[in-house]
Amino acid sequence: MRSLISILDLSVEELDQLIATAKDIIAHPENYWDKCAHKKLATLFYEPSTRTRLSFEAAMLELGGSVLGFSEASSSSASKGESMADTAKILSCYADIMAIRHPKEGAPFVASNNATIPVINAGDGGHNHPTQTLADLLTISREMGRVNDLTIGLCGDLKYGRTVHSLIEAMSRYTGIKFVLISPKELKIPGFIRYNVLEKHGIPYTETDSLEEAMPQLDVLYMTRIQRERFDDPYEYERLKDSYVLTAEKMGLAKEQMCVLHPLPRVNEISVKVDDDPRAAYFRQALNGKYMRMALILKLLEEAKANPIREAIDTSDLEYDRVCQNPKCITQTEQELPQLFRCTDKAADIHRCIYCEQRA
Amino acid sequence: MRSLISILDLSVEELDQLIATAKDIIAHPENYWDKCAHKKLATLFYEPSTRTRLSFEAAMLELGGSVLGFSEASSSSASKGESMADTAKILSCYADIMAIRHPKEGAPFVASNNATIPVINAGDGGHNHPTQTLADLLTISREMGRVNDLTIGLCGDLKYGRTVHSLIEAMSRYTGIKFVLISPKELKIPGFIRYNVLEKHGIPYTETDSLEEAMPQLDVLYMTRIQRERFDDPYEYERLKDSYVLTAEKMGLAKEQMCVLHPLPRVNEISVKVDDDPRAAYFRQALNGKYMRMALILKLLEEAKANPIREAIDTSDLEYDRVCQNPKCITQTEQELPQLFRCTDKAADIHRCIYCEQRA
Amino acid sequence: MRSLISILDLSVEELDQLIATAKDIIAHPENYWDKCAHKKLATLFYEPSTRTRLSFEAAMLELGGSVLGFSEASSSSASKGESMADTAKILSCYADIMAIRHPKEGAPFVASNNATIPVINAGDGGHNHPTQTLADLLTISREMGRVNDLTIGLCGDLKYGRTVHSLIEAMSRYTGIKFVLISPKELKIPGFIRYNVLEKHGIPYTETDSLEEAMPQLDVLYMTRIQRERFDDPYEYERLKDSYVLTAEKMGLAKEQMCVLHPLPRVNEISVKVDDDPRAAYFRQALNGKYMRMALILKLLEEAKANPIREAIDTSDLEYDRVCQNPKCITQTEQELPQLFRCTDKAADIHRCIYCEQRA
Repeated sequence: MRSLISILDLSVEELDQLIATAKDIIAHPENYWDKCAHKKLATLFYEPSTRTRLSFEAAMLELGGSVLGFSEASSSSASKGESMADTAKILSCYADIMAIRHPKEGAPFVASNNATIPVINAGDGGHNHPTQTLADLLTISREMGRVNDLTIGLCGDLKYGRTVHSLIEAMSRYTGIKFVLISPKELKIPGFIRYNVLEKHGIPYTETDSLEEAMPQLDVLYMTRIQRERFDDPYEYERLKDSYVLTAEKMGLAKEQMCVLHPLPRVNEISVKVDDDPRAAYFRQALNGKYMRMALILKLLEEAKANPIREAIDTSDLEYDRVCQNPKCITQTEQELPQLFRCTDKAADIHRCIYCEQRA
Repeated sequence: MRSLISILDLSVEELDQLIATAKDIIAHPENYWDKCAHKKLATLFYEPSTRTRLSFEAAMLELGGSVLGFSEASSSSASKGESMADTAKILSCYADIMAIRHPKEGAPFVASNNATIPVINAGDGGHNHPTQTLADLLTISREMGRVNDLTIGLCGDLKYGRTVHSLIEAMSRYTGIKFVLISPKELKIPGFIRYNVLEKHGIPYTETDSLEEAMPQLDVLYMTRIQRERFDDPYEYERLKDSYVLTAEKMGLAKEQMCVLHPLPRVNEISVKVDDDPRAAYFRQALNGKYMRMALILKLLEEAKANPIREAIDTSDLEYDRVCQNPKCITQTEQELPQLFRCTDKAADIHRCIYCEQRA
Repeated sequence: MRSLISILDLSVEELDQLIATAKDIIAHPENYWDKCAHKKLATLFYEPSTRTRLSFEAAMLELGGSVLGFSEASSSSASKGESMADTAKILSCYADIMAIRHPKEGAPFVASNNATIPVINAGDGGHNHPTQTLADLLTISREMGRVNDLTIGLCGDLKYGRTVHSLIEAMSRYTGIKFVLISPKELKIPGFIRYNVLEKHGIPYTETDSLEEAMPQLDVLYMTRIQRERFDDPYEYERLKDSYVLTAEKMGLAKEQMCVLHPLPRVNEISVKVDDDPRAAYFRQALNGKYMRMALILKLLEEAKANPIREAIDTSDLEYDRVCQNPKCITQTEQELPQLFRCTDKAADIHRCIYCEQRA
């Protein structure tokens, strides 16, 4: 039995298999109508996220399963001080698989170490959101006919945008990928992506602060939102924001064969006038998210059936002598959790919390 | 594909067909157990309304379908600033039909212009609530054996009560209908109902401030709540309120064959002692609401199957030079919506916002 | 048709039958997959309780039924001032059985007197929580192989802990039961349990403030939480609290064949190190709760089918001349409810409110 906490939990072969399953579901939905009969998905949403929650629920319902859960922390036992571990054990009594959204980084990982059913990370703080990346991959595959040999532009907040980081990690394992990183200097890609992913794997990338300049070379444009609160200087934000808004005019600079993605919800970073452009793929992307979640639920339930024993956490090389300083780490609110670190890069002497993966 | 935004979207023939379907469901519920197998209803409730939401959910479940959604805005993406249009597009990926309750008038209309699935207005501010009117019509039909040739008393807040306005609009298209309008002078029926519906169609009506006087002539009594906050003068409210409370004593003045309706929830405008009177139809009315919602869901899904293309909005004669002043209009919160008006009465030079239908 | 408001509504024979049904469900779950097809459970949770709500929902889903409802009062019509009686009548239109959690004591009882479907009390204030007791009974039966001839230790807050009171009431009707009451003096068992249950039925019991001393003789240990706010003197709380925490060390004093129960959620009154002890039964207890709720739903629906008429409330000997002073009684918030008392002990001249069962 496995859980999905990070997109890196899945091999390239597994990603390809999920994409293939999703396409088969799209082609023959009726073949999947009873696949999860008598199965239940628990949706544990400790912070609201309608889109993600309803996508999971729709996925399970289209597989013939049923759904229970909660949509905000205040209706949950967490408000009574129950630990994530206990909640995971209890929910394992009520459901066959669970999806967790949590403001604290590492919470789904803690759940997966205590549940007796598979756990899917539906977003934990600014950390991981692997099913969004699954949606992105299927969208690229369906829109472009391939997931290799693509120039992918990533635009907006590349510093904090977890969907961007996750997509880079996933795509870096395919061949022929080039990235164009488009952002204001305040929001450039952080070092752990630049060095540990891009440079480590020798992935070519260029950086620019101009969406217009980047536009003509892109096969895929991944838009994200730039938030005012990320800027120290509000004038700087005002000066910059419009250059990262995708307009019909900027779409005029793009290839005829390309696609625009956005994790949604958008606020105003893509003009509604772009919506009718056939290259605007972001609403289809939401639909693809449902199909990939269906494929994922099927895969994890099959694995759990074949092997109901939880994959043991690797306890070798754990380090017990550090304390995580990340205020968004689950260890901050659940203080009975043991502080555990692991060295992820011996040469650079980098140690990371095993829950939130922040550096010590 | 059609949506239901206002009760006037349905012709008299369609209303009669919905009533007939509802009666057939009541007679043979088992024939409908699988009608919506593999179909999903999304309930988007931006403000709480247990009764209406659960009635929709029960309706879909009794048709063999399933349900997903949210029950208040705080658990939705609206709190992240997503537009109604985007939400409608996304929800179209997750469900086959959706019911929307929204505090802003015109929100379901905006959704229906962007969704690729049918939209049912489950109440938008003080504007429309067509499925309540469907419940009212079935109740009148079942209780009285007809929807024609009836004297209908409407009692209470006739000024702001949207269910009253909607019922007048619906019943005015049947034959032999007379209205008795029973209210304090502060809460009389507004001009757009008086002139544009009653007088325009030549429907006979009388007005009175005495429920007791009206009682003996009524075939149907539709009670609504009088709210303290509607009165400028609190003493006036105190003086009046009891005369609009339906008691067992007042029921003694009524015909033996008649029925009492109320959209519920009631607070104290109908004494609980009336509940056991066989003419008290308001709890059966709630049950009828479920059956009419079943009939409506079936009808809209059948139409969507026969013709999946959304009915285009009529763009002729739109006027672009006015701004809606209604603080409850959806254009107040979603400022990217184009301000659109239409002349609804050339002689009187009346122009109405196409979203909330308020006069310019 | 019957409802379940208090565990005493069920005879010992009925408890045994429910336990037998639950065990059959565990042995042959597939035999129950369609038992509640086309049936709906309404979950009316006026205060959050994820565990209980999801347990009910999982139970209904595993019987092939479906679920609708709400998980907190703010999303319900209660916020519009609707009475419990009216809500019960309306929900009877939407569902076949309902489970109610309410902060006010007696609310499910009021619902059961107005609903036309069976009502299950899912916890009303500090009053009753009968399905927790059902979970406890099945757990004892499965862990120990019997529900007779047991020494049962009850530890912690015996004064306010409703699950403890309910378990004593239920177990007192079996043979060969001894209780060991383990608590600080501030939280000793209250008089109405001591005199009206234990002494009245001649059940042997001892009292101690030492969990360690009690440990060796116990077949069952039922742990509950001690809350700081129950103590007048915070130093007293600090001094005492650790002695009522169950640790691996204290487990070392216990019999090899025994079991530890806890209604959950636990905060820290059981060390997580006890979780792996085979005698720690509290997570299995949560699972058992689901099976007993399945058995209960089946039983009540069968009874309702055989006899759809609501069991009349016994109106003999009602007393109309007292007013309930319990601030948590449903009569405090629903003032149109008639104040009704009944003499429960003529010798001692004890009169109790029929809703919350508090003494006049």
